[in-house]
Amino acid sequence: MHSIIQFALLPFLFAYAQSTPTPHSLPAKVHARTSSPGYGTLTTTTNGSIIHAVINNPPINLWDYKLAADISSFVDTLATNVNTTTNPKVVIFSSANHDFFIAHYEIHTLDAASPVLPPGNGTLIGEQLLRTRTNLASLPVIFIAEINGRTSGAGNEFAVQCDVRYAGPATSLSHLEVGFGLPPGAGGIQFLVKLIGRARALEYILSGRAVDAVTAAAIGWVNKAFGSAEELRQQTDALAERIAAFPEQGLAAIKARVNVQKPSDADLQGDNDLFTQLASTKVTQEAGALFLKVSENESAGSFELNLPDDLTEIVPPDV
Amino acid sequence: MHSIIQFALLPFLFAYAQSTPTPHSLPAKVHARTSSPGYGTLTTTTNGSIIHAVINNPPINLWDYKLAADISSFVDTLATNVNTTTNPKVVIFSSANHDFFIAHYEIHTLDAASPVLPPGNGTLIGEQLLRTRTNLASLPVIFIAEINGRTSGAGNEFAVQCDVRYAGPATSLSHLEVGFGLPPGAGGIQFLVKLIGRARALEYILSGRAVDAVTAAAIGWVNKAFGSAEELRQQTDALAERIAAFPEQGLAAIKARVNVQKPSDADLQGDNDLFTQLASTKVTQEAGALFLKVSENESAGSFELNLPDDLTEIVPPDV
Amino acid sequence: MHSIIQFALLPFLFAYAQSTPTPHSLPAKVHARTSSPGYGTLTTTTNGSIIHAVINNPPINLWDYKLAADISSFVDTLATNVNTTTNPKVVIFSSANHDFFIAHYEIHTLDAASPVLPPGNGTLIGEQLLRTRTNLASLPVIFIAEINGRTSGAGNEFAVQCDVRYAGPATSLSHLEVGFGLPPGAGGIQFLVKLIGRARALEYILSGRAVDAVTAAAIGWVNKAFGSAEELRQQTDALAERIAAFPEQGLAAIKARVNVQKPSDADLQGDNDLFTQLASTKVTQEAGALFLKVSENESAGSFELNLPDDLTEIVPPDV
Repeated sequence: MHSIIQFALLPFLFAYAQSTPTPHSLPAKVHARTSSPGYGTLTTTTNGSIIHAVINNPPINLWDYKLAADISSFVDTLATNVNTTTNPKVVIFSSANHDFFIAHYEIHTLDAASPVLPPGNGTLIGEQLLRTRTNLASLPVIFIAEINGRTSGAGNEFAVQCDVRYAGPATSLSHLEVGFGLPPGAGGIQFLVKLIGRARALEYILSGRAVDAVTAAAIGWVNKAFGSAEELRQQTDALAERIAAFPEQGLAAIKARVNVQKPSDADLQGDNDLFTQLASTKVTQEAGALFLKVSENESAGSFELNLPDDLTEIVPPDV
Repeated sequence: MHSIIQFALLPFLFAYAQSTPTPHSLPAKVHARTSSPGYGTLTTTTNGSIIHAVINNPPINLWDYKLAADISSFVDTLATNVNTTTNPKVVIFSSANHDFFIAHYEIHTLDAASPVLPPGNGTLIGEQLLRTRTNLASLPVIFIAEINGRTSGAGNEFAVQCDVRYAGPATSLSHLEVGFGLPPGAGGIQFLVKLIGRARALEYILSGRAVDAVTAAAIGWVNKAFGSAEELRQQTDALAERIAAFPEQGLAAIKARVNVQKPSDADLQGDNDLFTQLASTKVTQEAGALFLKVSENESAGSFELNLPDDLTEIVPPDV
Repeated sequence: MHSIIQFALLPFLFAYAQSTPTPHSLPAKVHARTSSPGYGTLTTTTNGSIIHAVINNPPINLWDYKLAADISSFVDTLATNVNTTTNPKVVIFSSANHDFFIAHYEIHTLDAASPVLPPGNGTLIGEQLLRTRTNLASLPVIFIAEINGRTSGAGNEFAVQCDVRYAGPATSLSHLEVGFGLPPGAGGIQFLVKLIGRARALEYILSGRAVDAVTAAAIGWVNKAFGSAEELRQQTDALAERIAAFPEQGLAAIKARVNVQKPSDADLQGDNDLFTQLASTKVTQEAGALFLKVSENESAGSFELNLPDDLTEIVPPDV
């Protein structure tokens, strides 16, 4: 299916891809710095007023206690430094993993019979996810997701709450919560409905099916699709450099006024409340246990690599 | 025009159409049952947790007292059985008529000089339309419209309030109310603006022009377009089976949370009130009489078959 | 870049372009009349219930005191005659300038050091822009923008508040306010977010980059793109004539009910307040002075012709 889609829609794809790329030049005031928060799953490099934040949490970039802590620690720092010169103008999130952008939420967090083991903390992971969610959309910093690889569930919720999404040829975007009898709980529903409309949001969230980059660009799930990882990198950098060239007060003002139409905090909280309420049901608990079994504890095997196609395998037999 | 559009955009169309179809296999717990409400215009077949509801109201699938009664009776039963195991997870609405999905509202309902004759009842048709409208979007059942053929006015209002729309090559979607000096009154405006945006909703509702399946998919009026009726059937069934494989609590929760952004009841009522208020005007009454004349009482002739193109024929001469 | 996009996406473009054009025939009750408000930058011709309003304010169709006065005077008259037979059903705005639809807001209005000289009046230009903005969306007259050429900033804000946008091959749509450290202030943000979604609105307003007609149609910024100026004119006229053939009460009712989802006056005012608040900052004043210098006082030279690409040239060096 993918090869056919990609050939058929290549004209649309290449229309973007072949636009003249802005040369990759660092701004004059670059002061490259590389840092890595607590667990080492997020490496940040500062170039002038742009931060590249690279996610690397082997084997599948799971949103587990390590990645949740590192991303939320990084974003919390931006929230603390709001409106100071310490903050960047633009942050680019990308992945060091060729197969995954962010796989999904750590399923042990859902499974009471096989919970997250110390030093992890299931409650904390949830809190960090929600705090990160709030900050991405509201901070006066522009967040760009440079997506190439699979991302599902909480990974997609993180992606759709970034301000701009550029996608490469290995992109696969989906939701898997329906397999557990759950709605997405971290804001993904409300942002996705705003991006792709009621009908397509229902289609993809209810079915757990994935879209590739070209389809995602055609329906608005991502801003643009590119034909290679190199093209994706160049175009993402070019956009970040262009935005970062402009005065900070305008970037903040524009994001604030676009935010007039963002989902309300009450609606995001409502999604989270329903997710939490249903997470303890028998069907969710059974699906969680099945997921951990068939995925061999979320290893980088064929189940995770084919996740949307295999999702029905986690449905308990009496459903 | 249509042949050129279809050739030119076939790559986009086939991208979807050639995706590997899920084999059409019935779920294990199938208990095929065929029933037909009061007037026999809606035949429902239950396969496990999926109901196929086939519309057949010759000659043009008019939304008249028969179809209004049968569809509302069927949907009322779903509303009565809400959250019981009696209810299906997914309902697919399709048409047995190759030319029409649902033509439009019965025009005798509008025309005081030539009203619906007994056993029909104009007031009841309106009430049934509105009750069906409310139920489609709010019930915890997933409604898929499998569209192939013409649908206008109330037919399109019904279609856009289903949760997902898949469309085949004979699809033609339009509004005809503007010809009568009326706005659509059964919720179609608010749902269409959410799907295709303010500017395209204005363009198509103000002009009464039609879109085909490929254009409809490009702008979001339908989810996907397919190259043949067979492909459409296979892909619709595959989507329904995929959704029906998942736990019911999650389907209901997802639809409920997506509904946070659905049009408000007050706005839908406002559309209906303005429709009702204007329906008794001289221009609407004259247009209604002209419509019944040139359509030869809504028969399957050239006027109904070319409805969007011929719509100006019903405008009274002094307008 | 442009030639590649146009070849690659020509099928999509021509799908629309090659639809059979309605012959350009004037309605029976035509009473051609040509008038030109105070400064002669807007020529209006009435054909039956359609007014063609052609913008011509050399050299670049700047939104200056002349165009602001002429457009607002014209639209004010429509507002005064609301619901009278004096008013047209449809107004088409087009440009007599091959390079520009409406360039942008007169920058002297922003620059305290080099303000608008008499007989211009900076405060009045702003008031006229806002009054025009309010009227376009709310009046029971259908406004179609026939766009071919560049339009940025206030020009794009005017365009997105028309009811329908058709675009020709010379179209370039963008925002330039980010270069001044400002958000768009005349309603453009809220309407653009509704048309193209949060993520693309952020991408284009934050970067100041332009889209051509084909890309604009693909993402919803315009309704349709056409392959030639002639095709654009024919299709725009055909749409206007089609709409104008229907009863006025229905056109007004449809626009009123679609307006249920238009941006709120409070949100539009909020954009304007933030624009005004930031306009006096040092960075905006410096950028304004630089803009006037590099554009050679907004002349039709290479800077204005390449505006989106050159926008970073106006950023003060210490930003």
